[in-house]
Amino acid sequence: MNILVASGPNLNLLGLREPSIYGTATLEQIHQRLHEEADVLGCTVTCFQSNHEGALIDFLQENRTSAAGALLNPGGLTHSSVSLHDTVKSMPFPVIEVHLSNIYAREEWRRHSVISPATRAQVVGFGWVSYLTALRGLVALLRNEEPVSS
Amino acid sequence: MNILVASGPNLNLLGLREPSIYGTATLEQIHQRLHEEADVLGCTVTCFQSNHEGALIDFLQENRTSAAGALLNPGGLTHSSVSLHDTVKSMPFPVIEVHLSNIYAREEWRRHSVISPATRAQVVGFGWVSYLTALRGLVALLRNEEPVSS
Amino acid sequence: MNILVASGPNLNLLGLREPSIYGTATLEQIHQRLHEEADVLGCTVTCFQSNHEGALIDFLQENRTSAAGALLNPGGLTHSSVSLHDTVKSMPFPVIEVHLSNIYAREEWRRHSVISPATRAQVVGFGWVSYLTALRGLVALLRNEEPVSS
Amino acid sequence: MNILVASGPNLNLLGLREPSIYGTATLEQIHQRLHEEADVLGCTVTCFQSNHEGALIDFLQENRTSAAGALLNPGGLTHSSVSLHDTVKSMPFPVIEVHLSNIYAREEWRRHSVISPATRAQVVGFGWVSYLTALRGLVALLRNEEPVSS
Amino acid sequence: MNILVASGPNLNLLGLREPSIYGTATLEQIHQRLHEEADVLGCTVTCFQSNHEGALIDFLQENRTSAAGALLNPGGLTHSSVSLHDTVKSMPFPVIEVHLSNIYAREEWRRHSVISPATRAQVVGFGWVSYLTALRGLVALLRNEEPVSS
Amino acid sequence: MNILVASGPNLNLLGLREPSIYGTATLEQIHQRLHEEADVLGCTVTCFQSNHEGALIDFLQENRTSAAGALLNPGGLTHSSVSLHDTVKSMPFPVIEVHLSNIYAREEWRRHSVISPATRAQVVGFGWVSYLTALRGLVALLRNEEPVSS
Amino acid sequence: MNILVASGPNLNLLGLREPSIYGTATLEQIHQRLHEEADVLGCTVTCFQSNHEGALIDFLQENRTSAAGALLNPGGLTHSSVSLHDTVKSMPFPVIEVHLSNIYAREEWRRHSVISPATRAQVVGFGWVSYLTALRGLVALLRNEEPVSS
Amino acid sequence: MNILVASGPNLNLLGLREPSIYGTATLEQIHQRLHEEADVLGCTVTCFQSNHEGALIDFLQENRTSAAGALLNPGGLTHSSVSLHDTVKSMPFPVIEVHLSNIYAREEWRRHSVISPATRAQVVGFGWVSYLTALRGLVALLRNEEPVSS
Amino acid sequence: MNILVASGPNLNLLGLREPSIYGTATLEQIHQRLHEEADVLGCTVTCFQSNHEGALIDFLQENRTSAAGALLNPGGLTHSSVSLHDTVKSMPFPVIEVHLSNIYAREEWRRHSVISPATRAQVVGFGWVSYLTALRGLVALLRNEEPVSS
Amino acid sequence: MNILVASGPNLNLLGLREPSIYGTATLEQIHQRLHEEADVLGCTVTCFQSNHEGALIDFLQENRTSAAGALLNPGGLTHSSVSLHDTVKSMPFPVIEVHLSNIYAREEWRRHSVISPATRAQVVGFGWVSYLTALRGLVALLRNEEPVSS
Amino acid sequence: MNILVASGPNLNLLGLREPSIYGTATLEQIHQRLHEEADVLGCTVTCFQSNHEGALIDFLQENRTSAAGALLNPGGLTHSSVSLHDTVKSMPFPVIEVHLSNIYAREEWRRHSVISPATRAQVVGFGWVSYLTALRGLVALLRNEEPVSS
Amino acid sequence: MNILVASGPNLNLLGLREPSIYGTATLEQIHQRLHEEADVLGCTVTCFQSNHEGALIDFLQENRTSAAGALLNPGGLTHSSVSLHDTVKSMPFPVIEVHLSNIYAREEWRRHSVISPATRAQVVGFGWVSYLTALRGLVALLRNEEPVSS
Repeated sequence: MNILVASGPNLNLLGLREPSIYGTATLEQIHQRLHEEADVLGCTVTCFQSNHEGALIDFLQENRTSAAGALLNPGGLTHSSVSLHDTVKSMPFPVIEVHLSNIYAREEWRRHSVISPATRAQVVGFGWVSYLTALRGLVALLRNEEPVSS
Repeated sequence: MNILVASGPNLNLLGLREPSIYGTATLEQIHQRLHEEADVLGCTVTCFQSNHEGALIDFLQENRTSAAGALLNPGGLTHSSVSLHDTVKSMPFPVIEVHLSNIYAREEWRRHSVISPATRAQVVGFGWVSYLTALRGLVALLRNEEPVSS
Repeated sequence: MNILVASGPNLNLLGLREPSIYGTATLEQIHQRLHEEADVLGCTVTCFQSNHEGALIDFLQENRTSAAGALLNPGGLTHSSVSLHDTVKSMPFPVIEVHLSNIYAREEWRRHSVISPATRAQVVGFGWVSYLTALRGLVALLRNEEPVSS
Repeated sequence: MNILVASGPNLNLLGLREPSIYGTATLEQIHQRLHEEADVLGCTVTCFQSNHEGALIDFLQENRTSAAGALLNPGGLTHSSVSLHDTVKSMPFPVIEVHLSNIYAREEWRRHSVISPATRAQVVGFGWVSYLTALRGLVALLRNEEPVSS
Repeated sequence: MNILVASGPNLNLLGLREPSIYGTATLEQIHQRLHEEADVLGCTVTCFQSNHEGALIDFLQENRTSAAGALLNPGGLTHSSVSLHDTVKSMPFPVIEVHLSNIYAREEWRRHSVISPATRAQVVGFGWVSYLTALRGLVALLRNEEPVSS
Repeated sequence: MNILVASGPNLNLLGLREPSIYGTATLEQIHQRLHEEADVLGCTVTCFQSNHEGALIDFLQENRTSAAGALLNPGGLTHSSVSLHDTVKSMPFPVIEVHLSNIYAREEWRRHSVISPATRAQVVGFGWVSYLTALRGLVALLRNEEPVSS
Repeated sequence: MNILVASGPNLNLLGLREPSIYGTATLEQIHQRLHEEADVLGCTVTCFQSNHEGALIDFLQENRTSAAGALLNPGGLTHSSVSLHDTVKSMPFPVIEVHLSNIYAREEWRRHSVISPATRAQVVGFGWVSYLTALRGLVALLRNEEPVSS
Repeated sequence: MNILVASGPNLNLLGLREPSIYGTATLEQIHQRLHEEADVLGCTVTCFQSNHEGALIDFLQENRTSAAGALLNPGGLTHSSVSLHDTVKSMPFPVIEVHLSNIYAREEWRRHSVISPATRAQVVGFGWVSYLTALRGLVALLRNEEPVSS
Repeated sequence: MNILVASGPNLNLLGLREPSIYGTATLEQIHQRLHEEADVLGCTVTCFQSNHEGALIDFLQENRTSAAGALLNPGGLTHSSVSLHDTVKSMPFPVIEVHLSNIYAREEWRRHSVISPATRAQVVGFGWVSYLTALRGLVALLRNEEPVSS
Repeated sequence: MNILVASGPNLNLLGLREPSIYGTATLEQIHQRLHEEADVLGCTVTCFQSNHEGALIDFLQENRTSAAGALLNPGGLTHSSVSLHDTVKSMPFPVIEVHLSNIYAREEWRRHSVISPATRAQVVGFGWVSYLTALRGLVALLRNEEPVSS
Repeated sequence: MNILVASGPNLNLLGLREPSIYGTATLEQIHQRLHEEADVLGCTVTCFQSNHEGALIDFLQENRTSAAGALLNPGGLTHSSVSLHDTVKSMPFPVIEVHLSNIYAREEWRRHSVISPATRAQVVGFGWVSYLTALRGLVALLRNEEPVSS
Repeated sequence: MNILVASGPNLNLLGLREPSIYGTATLEQIHQRLHEEADVLGCTVTCFQSNHEGALIDFLQENRTSAAGALLNPGGLTHSSVSLHDTVKSMPFPVIEVHLSNIYAREEWRRHSVISPATRAQVVGFGWVSYLTALRGLVALLRNEEPVSS
């Protein structure tokens, strides 16, 4: 079971950019931690970052039939990319939207995500832990866990 | 380390109400599962549900000094309760907003949460797994986990 | 066949409060008249008033399986209570929204009901006769009357 | 005592048009049923339908001094006809707005009626029963019924 | 030089309808007075009223090549009739918009005229004198009066 | 196979009205050309124009069971006629919305069509060629053409 | 009977400023023509122009008890001066709002006058003839003319 | 002469919650100071706080006939409680709205009070002194003080 | 300790203008009463009124270093004067906004004050008593009163 | 005469993505059919698809001087790409906007195209036939067809 | 060649008012620096500041025929003064709008300038250097500099 | 000291595209002139243009540590690219936004820049001179020039 992890514009600057908002962890460190967690959960992750909307769309489309799910942090594309929304909607697997900062406690225009309606779920505001938490949640979803074992 | 789990109006109907949207698990089953997960994580949970905004505020205020964090599913209060927003803001610990359904894929007026700006983070759209995932994320936050061990 | 009649905040002041808008009949008089009309129609009514949103939700939830329908005058909760909307939506029977005054001829902000989309029908602006008319309409609906007998 | 029953554009298609929304009763059947109910209530009804806004205005104006009240289902004119609003406002008798479907549970733009502020009351969402219920409510209003006989 | 005087829906009720707003003069009296004033000014007027938007459009189109100008009181069509706007715009002569009441001191939605951008000028709020004043202004315009004779 | 061609208010002025926007072809010339094209395509057209919203609704309703499709240029009714929207929606055949000018490059309020959601498709901005192109497109639709012959 | 004629910012540039919109007549020429017309009508006019909002308010206040009416062209103050609105409202005589250009056919933000609700009537779009027409209309109003002599 | 002092949700946390905004005085200290000031002014105060909207409404209704006026700090209910608005409107005595912080210098959504239109006056932004100042102002109002003694 | 009392446009008409809204006290009487109250409170007041925005700004700037605080009733400038907002913000002392009428119970556009965010506090709706109450509140603020003496 | 055919993000998934909305034809099949139709019409087409906004802009710019016209289906870029708007505007030939689905009958935010004002015409809602119809319309435009041969 | 430099309300407080936003340079120092720079550029400057909108309008009007261009920092008048907009529009020379702070990074309502559409260009956010930069840019414009000498 | 000069989509068409708005200078000519001016100012410039948002982000990120400042003309990305906003915000040096045309005098939707809040300053409307002026202003800023030498 392979999970895609796609991160959008400027996320390659993590650790350098506004650390009071985004934390000091770099994207490579987060990717490495996700690989370790995937081992624990019994799955694999394929990680990708680009500043190009088109490249993110290409990445998702190319893995459309082989992946079981995806984490997507659209970065600045969150607020305007209908194209990415359409790509997410055409994926046959659930996509989880991930944000490091609590976008609902920031500028007004950061509160509206055009991606959210196309995703299955969102994890927002835990810093780098958002990726980790989203991965755990997605795997639980894909394994169809029930609160009580029958 | 004790974590509060507060659920608002109509969540006592879980399992009965629109199961295609909210799932078939009852709130009791979810509470029980959270107790089990808390054991695994080495903490405890105190669960509470009410249809009364005032009772939810009282519950949070009364546990203000003894709890380490809280999960809050405000139900229908999500969209208008400035009072609950103010209560969350006056808590000395992080509060995680939880929603079972993807509120961003439903009616327009369900997309705006007045609670979100006061919370630390949100987990939305995983069904009952939202509670479970939020609990794991909150504990990771409180334990200050880093992606790489130093 | 039992019909619930629920009235929200400030409706206990009927007869005292702004009689030029709301009329001089008291809520007790209206309740009594509805009991008499119910006799004529061959059903019963259970009447309830509260200034507490939570108590109205509790009342509807508690009668969820025993009632055949409900009249609901949400009073000031009409314009903001998503919680009450959700409660109405989770009832297995039709709910009729009732208003004494023509809310569409008053202040702009009184024109928008968040409850209406969840109800089956509305009767608005007949003064106390709104309750009476709504009861007759609800019973006709429940008995599935057709314009021409086959 | 004569009551006008005016129906606007496309209501002549009742029974044919979107029966899941508007029901299977035809307008003639509804008119016939209203005549029968009028007999029971001790009044008469004059029924009229047109697809022309101007014709509906002419109809109301021509019966301005002879009628005691009116039911008006403005159809698609509900949402924009200030002219019909003005006509209703200049009638010396109460006009009841009638809708078959719950317009508040449909498209956003169907929720706003420019006619409502000029009418005395509204009956909305009972299907063909809306006409019947409105007629009963209007007669009760005109007869000045009180909840308790003095 | 012939001037058209067209009045829209409900203006045939002038003198009967809300006299505190619209005055006690009837439309016939106003038409008669305009004929007299036209005599004084050395022109003629052709007066027309209809409750039908289409009839008003037909009237203007039919007189398109013979008239020198027009007064138009669109009544309730003021606020929504793009068709009438387009008709006015396609006239080869100036059209003056006329309102009896000060529409800017009434309900919010009466303040916006979709007709105004297509007209040459407006005279608003003088009661029946609006027609008279507009006729004088239109004739002055058509005669190209200058403030100082050269 | 008969196709309706309905044109709304002011389209009878084509060729006379603002030729820089609407071109110099008259409506009769366009109608004649559509008859010729219909011959080529193996179908017939029934053409109609009116300045009356009600007459356009009557025309569509009267041909409801005999036509196979319709072209509709609603003229100024485009922007406010919910009645025409409802008529289009109740037709059992596809209706194509046609505009001569590019309404999206003109005044802000011309950009919003209340008719579009009820139609199957739109052809906008080709001048008189919009009618011709729409006819060809509609016939291709009705004949269920596929891009590759199987 | 004395009539005030007050003109706001930039109207002293009339004749110089954008003549295609405002015409070539200067404000002095207009004032002179108004004096002549006042002679004809049997009244007097006091003319005033200032680029200072405060000076216009002072002018109206100082003539509050001696004037019988006023023409007011607020210029750029039309769209934001609540102070001038309040001054107009506190005058014991009718004030007529005057604009040379058709403000409803220009930039969107020129369409909204905060002064209009406080005035009795408006004359808009006749060029310099707006002043002349407004003076005639105001005098007719003040003399309480009826369409038919009794 | 008895004055009610009602405080809404979270005001029981005064002194603990965001002291940089709300100050360090507790609600008990403020209540005590108001009792002392009431002594000076020759009246009494009845103080009440609740986190429940319904309880605040009950409190005002129960003292409806015995009190001479009220101070109301609605807390988070300020921005959405139409029910509380209606309660205030149905009181036979003046109600003064009180806020500790300057709500107009905070988040956008704190600027709009649905309570204000129903109250007689507001005192906002003086910290705890708002209560004291409002009490003095209310008593001056109730005693009908004039600026100059006659 | 000197307190400035600045009143904006039209406040010189107090007593004459709409007494049902603004009361019968004149501004001079209010100023005199404030001098008397200042004596009681052990401070002085400097009173000023102007219809000119610029003069009000000049007045505040000129007293910038000598005054201890200010009351400001901006009149009609309340709703649009960013300049006055900026002046208030640049004062080194607290400014209290004062309104005689309850601006929140009047026209929609009177509800928004651009001045409020720059002021320290507001006193609104007490009639002339607003000035008196504001003076008392400002002095209490400046003297740093605490609810309980330590 | 060469016509460009440019398709934006996700249109390479045609046939796979939401076939109930977009149909089962693949983009290659459509391109092939357009080549065949071009043969019939006596012109050629150059087809291009990309998920990259920049690549679409580059494509149009590179063919700026050699093409006679273009069809453009901007996909998700329709709703936000001002850059593409500007590119279209700077082309010396007419560009026809093409959409497969009726974007006016879908989500609210799909109704607004920022591209439309820069294009010459639009063909919307015919499924794959939109491309075919647009090509025919564009060629008719370019050949300057008149409805009647002179 | 003379350049006007006009500064609006509160700019006389530069150096005193919120130095973290506006810097420590006084307006006199800036004026002196502009005189020096004008010498370098071979032109002259006439500097003016006022807190009165009317005085700024008078200043521009009086220099209308003698100046070659103007810098205008409208201060708080930026956001509402249509009068100043109109004055700028009626100047025969280019006017450059100048702001010291980046108004687009401050309060929402500071982002909208009603002056900008009437000006030729804007220089915003360089602190006092905005004036200097604007002067250099304006002179380059007036001298019609080309990027390459022919 | 090196300054970046980045230009967005379609700016490579300068000189070809709408010269009445954008002028006749080509981007190469402007770049050459900036190199010459940089020589005069004692710095260097690195110029870059792309139609790809991602490429512009890559360019800024790659020069993040070596440049001293940047000029950015985002072209059509101005109005929607939150990604570019975020990139600008994460640069350690000041970025100046540059536009050739006065975007505030064009279409409504061109007036809003999502980039501006992240930049230090803006130079807008000088045609190609905007680049030159911005370079001079940026260098003055970086050199911390004061209006008076100490």
